[in-house]
Amino acid sequence: MMEGVRRVALRTFHGRSTIGNGFRRISRRYQTVNIRGFAANMSPPSKAVVYEEHGPPDQVTRIINLPPVEIKENDVCVKMLAAPINPSDINRIQGVYPVRPTVPAIGGYEGVGEVQSVGSAVRDLSPGDWVIPSPPSFGTWQTYIVKEESVWHKINNVIPMEYAATVTVNPLSALRMLEDFENLSSDSVVQNGATSIVGQCVIQLANFRGIHSINIIRDRVESEEVKQRLKKLGADEVFTESELGVKNIKGLLGALPEPVLGFNCVGGDSASLVLKLLRQGGTMVTYGGMARKPVTVSTSSFIFKDLALRGFWLQKWMSAGKAKECRAMIDQLLDIIQEGKLKYEMQLVPFNEFSVALDKALGNQGSQPKQVLKF
Amino acid sequence: MMEGVRRVALRTFHGRSTIGNGFRRISRRYQTVNIRGFAANMSPPSKAVVYEEHGPPDQVTRIINLPPVEIKENDVCVKMLAAPINPSDINRIQGVYPVRPTVPAIGGYEGVGEVQSVGSAVRDLSPGDWVIPSPPSFGTWQTYIVKEESVWHKINNVIPMEYAATVTVNPLSALRMLEDFENLSSDSVVQNGATSIVGQCVIQLANFRGIHSINIIRDRVESEEVKQRLKKLGADEVFTESELGVKNIKGLLGALPEPVLGFNCVGGDSASLVLKLLRQGGTMVTYGGMARKPVTVSTSSFIFKDLALRGFWLQKWMSAGKAKECRAMIDQLLDIIQEGKLKYEMQLVPFNEFSVALDKALGNQGSQPKQVLKF
Repeated sequence: MMEGVRRVALRTFHGRSTIGNGFRRISRRYQTVNIRGFAANMSPPSKAVVYEEHGPPDQVTRIINLPPVEIKENDVCVKMLAAPINPSDINRIQGVYPVRPTVPAIGGYEGVGEVQSVGSAVRDLSPGDWVIPSPPSFGTWQTYIVKEESVWHKINNVIPMEYAATVTVNPLSALRMLEDFENLSSDSVVQNGATSIVGQCVIQLANFRGIHSINIIRDRVESEEVKQRLKKLGADEVFTESELGVKNIKGLLGALPEPVLGFNCVGGDSASLVLKLLRQGGTMVTYGGMARKPVTVSTSSFIFKDLALRGFWLQKWMSAGKAKECRAMIDQLLDIIQEGKLKYEMQLVPFNEFSVALDKALGNQGSQPKQVLKF
Repeated sequence: MMEGVRRVALRTFHGRSTIGNGFRRISRRYQTVNIRGFAANMSPPSKAVVYEEHGPPDQVTRIINLPPVEIKENDVCVKMLAAPINPSDINRIQGVYPVRPTVPAIGGYEGVGEVQSVGSAVRDLSPGDWVIPSPPSFGTWQTYIVKEESVWHKINNVIPMEYAATVTVNPLSALRMLEDFENLSSDSVVQNGATSIVGQCVIQLANFRGIHSINIIRDRVESEEVKQRLKKLGADEVFTESELGVKNIKGLLGALPEPVLGFNCVGGDSASLVLKLLRQGGTMVTYGGMARKPVTVSTSSFIFKDLALRGFWLQKWMSAGKAKECRAMIDQLLDIIQEGKLKYEMQLVPFNEFSVALDKALGNQGSQPKQVLKF
């Protein structure tokens, strides 16, 4: 009886149904279970970033060793290759995300791995296959994960692992936002936070579809350099926030059509600039709030300009029975990446330097490329 | 040639295409034209509230006499019975409305009249018929209006004239807002500004359809009396803004379903209360901004609560080729009024006391019932 309890508790860290008991107890049991484990079809021991309580990620996370777990007949044991540190991962650890993982929990939400071994009933995956958890699920910041076959989506393994590891959250958000709110053809879209990964994906995916993008970046010393970089990706126009502080803001658009769709990941005054640039009847989609300021909208923007304001949350979209659709789009995005038409800057960091990567992801070292853990 | 020019200028005030020449010149011509007029099929002279320039309504409006105009073969001459002073009429005079009437212009946008005489080719209207301009059009604050037959919608003349005069703008807005944004069945709606005419119509039309209404009113001395009055109309709940300043705002709803649709005609903190009361995935429709404060929305309301914010403007809705649909709904509303199931407080004021009615409509005498001019 006690054995059963132990095993369930351990599996928590490998992504199965989360239970409430703390992992200190588990750590103490580690050796016992390890010894028993090799009798069955067991995973290798795993190293994982765990947190026992919600709080500042640099204080509540640490890397621990986890014992092997049993690989049941429908299970697949995956050796993780890479997993990014996304802002939403940080929010989950902080406990400010609406879906609050039960602690203790392992960090991470997306990533890519290679199949290490499979259970006796698994038919469609074999050792060596590259897989991603799709829809993504908690606990990708660890070296080995054992989950049921149905969780894993086999992907083409010819693209760089950092792209495979990050394709779900940011590129898929950009793709969905371009698809789900307006029926775009040769229209324009406007966005703030254009240097974010989603922002860069919006520029490239819009360009790929013949849609113009008008981009807003915050004022910074290297504005011109950033503008050139975004234009190289396909941005039609890039403005700093202060450049848009003019009376005739629409005059800046030249021959570009007034944008029908806007994306806001900043809030505050930057969101107001998106609203100003939108055309009559346009829609602004909020998917982030980097400035930690609310969106403020005049009454006449609603009544007379007929603007619609919406929100986008990938996790909700994926939970709405979209697993199959999600995988099809992942494949589509991976194809675009393979063709070299979707790029964004990332930095691969060895897993044992997690604390350095986390520090960068937390913004403590200024503007940094997306941090991707390499296992 | 000069005669033609004169006639066009005069017709301006009877609701035809507005032209730019000032009416001082026209007034000077009054007697001449009057004498010539009776030779053809001419309207009686008309008294009208006109403004030569945009500005404070109590300063820029005055009642003037207008000469008769010719009733052409497709024209109908209508003796106006009643026309309300709506907030949008005031905004048009102030020049703050997006559709700025060309001055000089006659005030008013909706109203009811009785057919006085018809042109030789008019078949479907006869003297004595009650008609409303539908879709509504500028210039209802005058005693006689000559416009083409197609402008007029014949209505049942058994309902009180003040309801016929006001059925288009406020009740129709309430009806459209209940229909156009969510597919309601036994849901709840929440609204602020619940004592407004649109607010009262929302309560009654929702009740009529089996939809619950949760109503927000501003704090005032006679709150309890107002609550009872709205509950008598069919309101399920009525809260003052300060009563909603509690942590567990949803706890106040008791057994009522969380509202899926909200209406905002106030803005500022009052709009935030509507947003707070809305359920996950709900929609708030802004149709007014009485507090002259913008709507402020948190990032998480968009992303995690998945709220949608929209606007409603009746004039835009009607201009979108909805003339026929509009008339069908007017008839439907008039039926409901006739059954005694749609009521709101109004005050009929003799046309020659226009300045008193205007003063009340401008809010200079505290809370007053809707002012309706009786010609």
